[in-house]
Amino acid sequence: MPTTLHAGLDAHFGALEAFLREQEAAFEPEVRPMVREVLAHPGKRLRPLLAFASGAGGTPTLALIRGAAIVELVHLATLVHDDVLDGADTRHGADTPNQTHGAHAAVLFGDALFAHALMLAAEYTTPELCRIVARASREVCSGEVCQTFSRGNDGISLDDYYRHIRLKTAELFEGACRVGALLAERPAGHIEACARFGRHLGIAYQIYDDLVDLLQDDTKAGKTLGTDAASGKLTLPMLLERDRSGPGVLVALRRGDEPRACISAETWRESFRRLDAEIASAEQALRPIEGSPSPFFLLRLTAFLREAAARLAPQA
Amino acid sequence: MPTTLHAGLDAHFGALEAFLREQEAAFEPEVRPMVREVLAHPGKRLRPLLAFASGAGGTPTLALIRGAAIVELVHLATLVHDDVLDGADTRHGADTPNQTHGAHAAVLFGDALFAHALMLAAEYTTPELCRIVARASREVCSGEVCQTFSRGNDGISLDDYYRHIRLKTAELFEGACRVGALLAERPAGHIEACARFGRHLGIAYQIYDDLVDLLQDDTKAGKTLGTDAASGKLTLPMLLERDRSGPGVLVALRRGDEPRACISAETWRESFRRLDAEIASAEQALRPIEGSPSPFFLLRLTAFLREAAARLAPQA
Repeated sequence: MPTTLHAGLDAHFGALEAFLREQEAAFEPEVRPMVREVLAHPGKRLRPLLAFASGAGGTPTLALIRGAAIVELVHLATLVHDDVLDGADTRHGADTPNQTHGAHAAVLFGDALFAHALMLAAEYTTPELCRIVARASREVCSGEVCQTFSRGNDGISLDDYYRHIRLKTAELFEGACRVGALLAERPAGHIEACARFGRHLGIAYQIYDDLVDLLQDDTKAGKTLGTDAASGKLTLPMLLERDRSGPGVLVALRRGDEPRACISAETWRESFRRLDAEIASAEQALRPIEGSPSPFFLLRLTAFLREAAARLAPQA
Repeated sequence: MPTTLHAGLDAHFGALEAFLREQEAAFEPEVRPMVREVLAHPGKRLRPLLAFASGAGGTPTLALIRGAAIVELVHLATLVHDDVLDGADTRHGADTPNQTHGAHAAVLFGDALFAHALMLAAEYTTPELCRIVARASREVCSGEVCQTFSRGNDGISLDDYYRHIRLKTAELFEGACRVGALLAERPAGHIEACARFGRHLGIAYQIYDDLVDLLQDDTKAGKTLGTDAASGKLTLPMLLERDRSGPGVLVALRRGDEPRACISAETWRESFRRLDAEIASAEQALRPIEGSPSPFFLLRLTAFLREAAARLAPQA
C-alpha cells in the first residue's frame, strides 16, 4: 500500500513512530537492540492507519497514538513468530530477529513484545482496551493454528476458509478500528460501524493477498507463484475450482503447474466477485457514519484495494 | 512439591481445575484438543497456590479462582514455548504440544493461550489485573531472552545472574501473589507483603533448581547432572567458583566433569547460604501481616524449600 494512504495523518504517524521508539527503554538492555531492529524497517503501518482513520477528527491524543502503537506491536509480535516458523531471513529488506538472533531468542522476544503491548493497553482507564487487544490476538493465533492444521487437507470447506481468514487477518483489522474509535471517544454506533468496516476489509485484503500468490509473478511481487499451493495451503480460487471440477486441480497446483492454466475463467471471475462483495460490504458498513471524518480516510483503503484488484484481474 | 502443600485449599483447587477445563470452549474447535492436552497432566500448580495463599481466608470467589487460572495459563503458555525451544517431547509424563502437533502449531498455540489469559484478566473491573499479568509475562520472556543471550558468555556477573532469575522466575511468583491478594480485596500493605514474599521465594526457588541441576543425580531427579553447564548456562555455584578460582571450572564442567569434584566446599556453602538468605527474606516479608491467614499457607512453601535444600546440601 502506498504511503499516500497516510496523507492528512502526518502528525499522527510522526507521533506514532516517536512513541514506538520510546518503548525500547521499557525493555531489558539485552532486549533493546531487538526492539530497535523490528521498528527500523516499518511495513505499511496498516493497522495504525485503521485506528487513526476510525478515530479521525481533531489533533491526535496520546491515548489514540498509544492505541495505534499497541495494535502495531501485536502485529509485529505475530510477524516475529511467523518469521521463525517460516524460517524467514529477511522482511522489508532487513534481517529478521530469527536470522540475527536465532529462533530461540526470536520466539521469546515475540512473546515479550506482545506482553508489552498488553501492558500499554492496561494503561487505559478501563479494561475495555485490554479486552479488544487480547481477543484480537487470541483470534489471530487461533486462525493461524487452524490454517496450520488444515495444510494438506484437501477436504476443507469454503466456510472453513472464510473462518480461518476472518480469524487470521480480519479480527485484528476489526480490533484496530475498534481501538481507534474507542480511544477517540466516538459513540457506540461509530465504533460498531468502523469495526464492521475493518472486518470486511480484512477478509477482502486476505482474499486479495491469496489471489496475488496465484497471479502475480516474481518480477512484480518479488515472490514465486503458487507458494500457498506448494505448502498445502488452500485458498479461495483453489477451493472454488475443486468444487467445480474436482480435486485434480489441487494435485496439479501442488506439482507446480501454472495457476492460470489449472483454474477456469469462471472460477477467477467468482473469486474476484467475492473479493468485490467484501469491499462493498466494508463500504456499506460506513453508511451510518457518513457525516464523520472517518469515511474520508477509510474509503481510501477500499478504493485502493479495488484498483489493485482491477490491475490483478486481467492476469487471471 | 508435594500436594500436601495444597491442604486446606481443596475447594479452591477443585474450582480451579473446573474453571480451567471450561476454558476449552472459548477456543476454535481445531484448538480445543491442545487446550485439553496441556491441562490433562497438571504440574504442581505452584502459581495458583501462591495466589490462593495470598488471598486466603473465607470461601474462594470466582474472581480469585479466575485470577489463579490466569497466572497458571501464562505459566503453561511459557512451558509450551520452552518445550518448542528445547525440542522437548514430554512433560509431566505426557507428550508436549511440540511433539504431538509440531513446532509450528505449538508456538501459535502458546500465543493463543497467553492471549486468552489476558482476555480473562480483562474481565476484572479495573485494568489493574491486566497490568500485573502483562508485566509479569513480559519480564518472564525478557529474562529468558537475557539468559539465552548470556549462554556461552563466561564473563556474566553475579548481578546479571540475579537479574535474570528475578525476571525469569520471581516476577511471575510475585505477580501470582499480587493477583491473589488483589482479588481477595486485601489492603495495600497485605498485597505488598505477599508480593515481596513471592519475589524472594521465586529467587530462592530458582537457586534451588539450579543447585539440583548440579547435585541431584539421574535416579532421584530423573535427569542428567550438569545439563545447565553443558548448555552454556552459568548458575550461582559456577559463578561463585569462577570468581574464587578462575574460569577453569567452567571449562571442566562443560566437558562433563563431576560438579562435586570441580566446585569447592566453600562455594557450595556460599551457594546454600545465599539460598537460605532468600528464604529468610521471604519469611521476613510476611512479618507485617502475621495475624492474617496468608502466612499459614505461604510459610509452608518456605519450610518445604528449606527442607529440600537441607536434603540436597550433604551431597555437595
